[in-house]
Amino acid sequence: MRILITGGAGFLGSHLGRRLLAEGHWITVFDNFLTGSRRNIQDLLRSSRAKVVTGDVTRELPRSIGEFERIYNLACPASPPHYQKAPVHTTLTSVLGTHHVLELGARCGARVLQASTSEVYGDPECHPQPESYRGAVSCTGPRACYDEGKRCAESLMMDYARTRGVKVRIARIFNTYGPGMAADDGRVVSNFAVQALRGEPLTIYGNGSQTRSLCYVDDMVDGLIALMEQDQVVGPVNLGNPEELTVREIAERIVSIVGRGRIVQQPLPTDDPKRRKPDVALASRALGFSPRVSFEEGARRTVQYFAKEVARARRTKRSSLPAGTGDALAASRALSREER
Amino acid sequence: MRILITGGAGFLGSHLGRRLLAEGHWITVFDNFLTGSRRNIQDLLRSSRAKVVTGDVTRELPRSIGEFERIYNLACPASPPHYQKAPVHTTLTSVLGTHHVLELGARCGARVLQASTSEVYGDPECHPQPESYRGAVSCTGPRACYDEGKRCAESLMMDYARTRGVKVRIARIFNTYGPGMAADDGRVVSNFAVQALRGEPLTIYGNGSQTRSLCYVDDMVDGLIALMEQDQVVGPVNLGNPEELTVREIAERIVSIVGRGRIVQQPLPTDDPKRRKPDVALASRALGFSPRVSFEEGARRTVQYFAKEVARARRTKRSSLPAGTGDALAASRALSREER
Repeated sequence: MRILITGGAGFLGSHLGRRLLAEGHWITVFDNFLTGSRRNIQDLLRSSRAKVVTGDVTRELPRSIGEFERIYNLACPASPPHYQKAPVHTTLTSVLGTHHVLELGARCGARVLQASTSEVYGDPECHPQPESYRGAVSCTGPRACYDEGKRCAESLMMDYARTRGVKVRIARIFNTYGPGMAADDGRVVSNFAVQALRGEPLTIYGNGSQTRSLCYVDDMVDGLIALMEQDQVVGPVNLGNPEELTVREIAERIVSIVGRGRIVQQPLPTDDPKRRKPDVALASRALGFSPRVSFEEGARRTVQYFAKEVARARRTKRSSLPAGTGDALAASRALSREER
Repeated sequence: MRILITGGAGFLGSHLGRRLLAEGHWITVFDNFLTGSRRNIQDLLRSSRAKVVTGDVTRELPRSIGEFERIYNLACPASPPHYQKAPVHTTLTSVLGTHHVLELGARCGARVLQASTSEVYGDPECHPQPESYRGAVSCTGPRACYDEGKRCAESLMMDYARTRGVKVRIARIFNTYGPGMAADDGRVVSNFAVQALRGEPLTIYGNGSQTRSLCYVDDMVDGLIALMEQDQVVGPVNLGNPEELTVREIAERIVSIVGRGRIVQQPLPTDDPKRRKPDVALASRALGFSPRVSFEEGARRTVQYFAKEVARARRTKRSSLPAGTGDALAASRALSREER
């Protein structure tokens, strides 16, 4: 099949592209390279079945981009320090971007999968969150550009399905980690791995008893492809790993993998999410989705990746890590509430 | 002041324009005339201080439109039968429209007021709804084009305030009625008035014990102007009349004003909103807002208006009422859940 991946040079997009290539498809990576990076897709582009088109989904997609049987719409910065840098652009990327992608999908009869997010649930009052939960999002706060943009994109997906007959799939993606994630995206695994490898203290906020559910990227790619290729569910489907770990446990395991590291506590930001955990009953039933990579194994592979990245950064004497901006780690620490 | 009213040919926009003209301002009405109508603004346009520009906010506003001190962004169909006709356009009207209006506001330093809605609360679990309530909106249902579009527009307003320094005001407008509303917009007051005047039975759904809080349009205009001109609150402010009436009471009062009419019951749609009522404590405190027109008085004026409209429609032998589409009343009846 001919497959378009918008945001295909990002963390998740590049893993997905690699898998689809391995399965024998033709892929087009569409990216504006604001948070995606060419390094993520260097290896993919050696294939004659892969090409890259630089562009921004907030503008209409060029006719010259071609026709597709499948479109994965992954274009949007996904971590708070990134998406809050230019919040209006973040909103337009989700809403106008999804609109443009759906127009392309309608034009060529492609099936369109939207990378939605657990953030549509906001600070959930119910735990774990099933797809029917309507969420508790502040539509006026500093995270609204992302949360509301993604919610609004879901509404567009469903309206294109209802009024234009576009075949849509919506994945609500929970916390995902693995090799290739940006060192500066402020997530708990990348933060801890980089801190431990650099010999810095690992900072946990509060006593570290808040929990995270972390899905290894290969499992997420399995889920996305299974969702795209099934015919049972049109509406949103949660994808993530329901195993809960406390932030302290995560830090301790990373310390044990790296072989060094000291954990320090900092005050808990007032709106740090306490818990978020996917209810994956629907994905399990409809897609046979079941995450297979243990945190032990996934964290080991991720630390290996960051070890190379930290060494490379030292060699090139550049303080910035890939896709990084100088002070983004600091910025991520300063965020009042984030998905760490 | 020079004041732009997008959606200025609509029900609320035309009342606002009339008031602002009476206060001595210069107004520009911007409208695409999809649900607004020229008849709504005929009288306004006799003033040398009023002009009309035809256009759609989903496109960038033309430079030639001029500069303004105040912009009221009222452009969006507001009743379910209207906004569900072209749901993608509804979403883009709210999101892209608000973006374009805010760009104009940033360019000329105008204060921008967004007409948001009680629909941002969805089917509320808390009653009455304060501004801090995060809502219970389904972001994938047939009303999401409106509800999520408006939520996303609020997020854009706040981001322009935070990152571009635009002076923004957000009104969460609850159920509003009065002369000039479209006969086919499916609201409880217009439905009942038109049915009674035509000698048709007044249809209530279920036993009519569900409640509505109805604000007369003049009170709403007071609130919008007071909100625009105050300097205390940047975030959303509820505007509406907190008096609750059952749907049966509303029907009975209309019957008594018209002097005839028979009430019939139809089955309650599964997701008919049971209650919605604004918490107007903030508006009262910050704006001195307090609705003054009783339902008795407001309904009388509204019935007078529809009496003329029904007579006019009979004279012209056209079955459609102003701004109406032939089967819109029927369509509004068929809607599974609406703001009746």
